[in-house]
Amino acid sequence: MRVFGIDCGTEFTGYGVVGVDSEARMPRLVHVAAGTIRLSKKEKTPQRLAQVYAELTALMALHQPEVVAIEEVFFSANVKSALKLGQVRGVAMLAAASCGLPVAEYAPLSIKSSVVGYGLAAKEQVQFMVARLLELNHAFDSADAADALAIAICHIHTSQTQQLQGIGR
Amino acid sequence: MRVFGIDCGTEFTGYGVVGVDSEARMPRLVHVAAGTIRLSKKEKTPQRLAQVYAELTALMALHQPEVVAIEEVFFSANVKSALKLGQVRGVAMLAAASCGLPVAEYAPLSIKSSVVGYGLAAKEQVQFMVARLLELNHAFDSADAADALAIAICHIHTSQTQQLQGIGR
Repeated sequence: MRVFGIDCGTEFTGYGVVGVDSEARMPRLVHVAAGTIRLSKKEKTPQRLAQVYAELTALMALHQPEVVAIEEVFFSANVKSALKLGQVRGVAMLAAASCGLPVAEYAPLSIKSSVVGYGLAAKEQVQFMVARLLELNHAFDSADAADALAIAICHIHTSQTQQLQGIGR
Repeated sequence: MRVFGIDCGTEFTGYGVVGVDSEARMPRLVHVAAGTIRLSKKEKTPQRLAQVYAELTALMALHQPEVVAIEEVFFSANVKSALKLGQVRGVAMLAAASCGLPVAEYAPLSIKSSVVGYGLAAKEQVQFMVARLLELNHAFDSADAADALAIAICHIHTSQTQQLQGIGR
């Protein structure tokens, strides 16, 4: 399984691709790629959205994931910022749809809980665990890239749990 | 000039294409097309967004506008609905960008003021004036289609005013 995680933002959108090495004795998470789409403040909104869309579809074509995972959003500072974040989120989901990929959504609590084992974990704890689970020996490209990796890991953990529950029945 | 107006919504997205007949003695507004993109509630969000995107880009290619006009949004019932509306709005702006069209945004007050002459006009007054200005002798496809035509008319009126101000200087 290969998962493409996206952490949407109006300035920086992180992405992280995580796979599973099922050849290993114990299924092991594998870091495939991660990075940040940085939007120019000089560009107008439609051009910024076009940039997110072009980069995401190119990255999905390159890394050939089977599924896209994104964070559910419930809270925002205000309606204006929710609307702006929604615009980027819509384009990210469209990129997945146009690449024929299903989209899984996870609440922030589930993501933290799945990676750290504690839903109210601090950002640093999440980053520490992401680095550890993926055996990374380099710094993250950005906090957004780390979050995107966490979202991808959450999808893999959730799928593995569902699989085990299926076997148990 | 030909303007493609869009009234974004999470269930129904209206569009309206308005042109200007500058051959006439007095520049006259011309109704080109209007309609409603109805999203299936059965589909998941990424597929719904893909439908909006596909229909909008096809309509833009068909009607060959020079500019896309959409409503600015400041208020929403809550963060969740703002986020959902933002998703559709992002895809609409992306459709414009991918067709190489500039996007103009207008506040609800400006649209009503431009069409009815009164920023706090009721929905019915706006529809009455849109039908009158475009010499329509048929009912609107939907309230969203009527709103989209109003947004397109607002852009034409605003451009004409700016042109006259330019001549006046």
